Amino acid sequence: MGQSITFHKADQLKKKPDAGQLGFGKYFTDYMFEMDYTLEKGWHDPKIVPYGPISLDPAATIFHYGQEVFEGLKAYRAEDGRILLFRPNKNMERMNQSCARLNIPKIDEKFVVKAIKKLVAVEQDWIPNQPGQSLYIRPFIIGTDAALGVHPSSMYKLLIILSPVGSYFGNSMSPVKIYVEDEYVRAVKGGVGFAKTSGNYAASLKAQTKSEELGFDQVLWLDGVEHKYIEEVGSMNIFFKIDDEVWTPALNGSILPGVTRNSVIALLKHWGITVKEKRISVKKLFKKAEKQQLKEVFGTGTAAVISPVGFLKWEDHVIKVANGETGKLSKKLYDTLTGIQTGKQKDELGWTEEVKVEKEKVTE
Amino acid sequence: MGQSITFHKADQLKKKPDAGQLGFGKYFTDYMFEMDYTLEKGWHDPKIVPYGPISLDPAATIFHYGQEVFEGLKAYRAEDGRILLFRPNKNMERMNQSCARLNIPKIDEKFVVKAIKKLVAVEQDWIPNQPGQSLYIRPFIIGTDAALGVHPSSMYKLLIILSPVGSYFGNSMSPVKIYVEDEYVRAVKGGVGFAKTSGNYAASLKAQTKSEELGFDQVLWLDGVEHKYIEEVGSMNIFFKIDDEVWTPALNGSILPGVTRNSVIALLKHWGITVKEKRISVKKLFKKAEKQQLKEVFGTGTAAVISPVGFLKWEDHVIKVANGETGKLSKKLYDTLTGIQTGKQKDELGWTEEVKVEKEKVTE
Ligand SMILES: Cc1ncc(COP(=O)(O)O)c(C=O)c1O
Ligand SMILES: Cc1ncc(COP(=O)(O)O)c(C=O)c1O
Repeated sequence: MGQSITFHKADQLKKKPDAGQLGFGKYFTDYMFEMDYTLEKGWHDPKIVPYGPISLDPAATIFHYGQEVFEGLKAYRAEDGRILLFRPNKNMERMNQSCARLNIPKIDEKFVVKAIKKLVAVEQDWIPNQPGQSLYIRPFIIGTDAALGVHPSSMYKLLIILSPVGSYFGNSMSPVKIYVEDEYVRAVKGGVGFAKTSGNYAASLKAQTKSEELGFDQVLWLDGVEHKYIEEVGSMNIFFKIDDEVWTPALNGSILPGVTRNSVIALLKHWGITVKEKRISVKKLFKKAEKQQLKEVFGTGTAAVISPVGFLKWEDHVIKVANGETGKLSKKLYDTLTGIQTGKQKDELGWTEEVKVEKEKVTE
Repeated sequence: MGQSITFHKADQLKKKPDAGQLGFGKYFTDYMFEMDYTLEKGWHDPKIVPYGPISLDPAATIFHYGQEVFEGLKAYRAEDGRILLFRPNKNMERMNQSCARLNIPKIDEKFVVKAIKKLVAVEQDWIPNQPGQSLYIRPFIIGTDAALGVHPSSMYKLLIILSPVGSYFGNSMSPVKIYVEDEYVRAVKGGVGFAKTSGNYAASLKAQTKSEELGFDQVLWLDGVEHKYIEEVGSMNIFFKIDDEVWTPALNGSILPGVTRNSVIALLKHWGITVKEKRISVKKLFKKAEKQQLKEVFGTGTAAVISPVGFLKWEDHVIKVANGETGKLSKKLYDTLTGIQTGKQKDELGWTEEVKVEKEKVTE
């Protein structure tokens, strides 16, 4: 797959949105990347084309049997002008794990990272540079076979679209309120919970809207078998500071293995803090809180980076965490991660990759 | 929603496929039904248009968060020329149950049945009339909001497409071989198993292809919690004749409530046969087989109607059912159901609805 990526120039470029109005995933850039798969040719015809509608047969697999995987990562504009990606190889590795579960043919991870870099280089003027802002990168693959009857598709499309974004939850460092869901279930062992696939999110909407109606920001999922053990938040993994240790649910097949989760664990260990990946019962957590041992709670994810949790509700029990404020460790993790991501802080763990505009420049 | 359905004439009609070559879901008719939803207008602009590609923004919800529901039913051509639908109201009722779980706005069930009838009337020449053949009807709804960030879509599209089909498993009355899946899980209570939504099918592909590699036709799913209790087959509900009784797994929130299942239960009761909807452990089932009490096994679904099971494998245990042949009760159910569906047999339970071509005729 050492294929060259062709470039199709747009007739007209869009007006860029106001830096203050970005929100999350509302605006899309001028170009997108596209690549097709057929049984005969494998992945082929990689190209950067003007952003625009895709046209599919109404019988396409994606509309009926949901064969889909996606990823989410960001490009950051450093103060010195460099463009940085944060561990893009990790996202591509996960994309292939998702593909394997969803019967989607594997991608060449290195080639797709290259495609991301080319696309970002083309769209460099779209990378916002205010604190908390970045260019969100969304690669996704859909099955496009036009045939009914449940079967793995024989044709696929991989697309990459870009969206300049602000922070996911408005002001990302203001603590969120979380509701422990005890009726609806997100995933179960043997299912697709560890994969980044659309069905997981469709299944989560009901609980998410219920939690919002009750005045909460996000849902904390429990395991699907016993409804006792903590899994993750809507689009984040979850961490608890218990006295001087940090606990997070172990990867058990039903939790998404977050890139931010992995990075937070590495950073904490790097700092000499004890991290325990384990099965955590919600009962035990609330006991720890009662005994004043629960010092901080935070979510981790590409969109929000670190999102402190100020308030937790489970059945009739409520916990106010860290007095409803952002804890010290949460703040330090946020500052360090965003520091590394934006090139302000030394990248000791070798996590960033530069997008070289000259080198990545595509010929027209 | 007493809206009138507009009709857009196609420039050219397709050549119809050979009656002997239909297969399942490979050919589509000349027209499709389409209707849009926005928060302001609700469901609006119902129309019958030439079958053709739909064009969507690459950020559309369906490509990322999988908000989708679908249905499947059939139109039959009776010997006397009448066109019959089988319990279309049941499918629309289930579609709304699926919508409720997936945060999709409800449809007007009666109106969509009317739309189905109009579309089938327009496409009446596409209804095949050989034994086992019919016109498969696939209504589906997709979220079309062009915005990232997990949220329920504010825009939707409902489409109905039609496909002339033969029997689902080739010769539908030759018994199938079934593999009891003990690793992968289809659904769990609190999830979306009872809804007809694409994510359930995406999650099932891995086990389905595994079973095919092992030489089986279909997977029999166990419950997601204990991996002990029988749920359903890939795209069918499952029934067991134990001595003179018939058992089928009770609807428990993770099984699709099949229209054929419901009809089979009603027919059996009508015939004075005891039907038990209960929790059935796979262990108990295999014990019953050992004691020669398991007389017949069959799947039920719109596509295959009744599909006898000749062979079951669970871990190291194998059962040959009814000597690998089609049991008497399975045959009687198949003949009765297809008899009612095609107007050959008296419809004592009032299940069929006629599509009146003159009345449903649309103005151009
Ligand atoms: C369900 C879920 N869990 C966790 C995460 C966090 O993963 P990452 O840190 O790779 O963004 C995400 C979002 O990406 C998610 O959707
Ligand atoms: C998972 C599943 N179970 C059962 C069925 C049978 O339902 P029905 O009889 O309504 O076709 C289907 C197919 O429609 C299905 O997809």
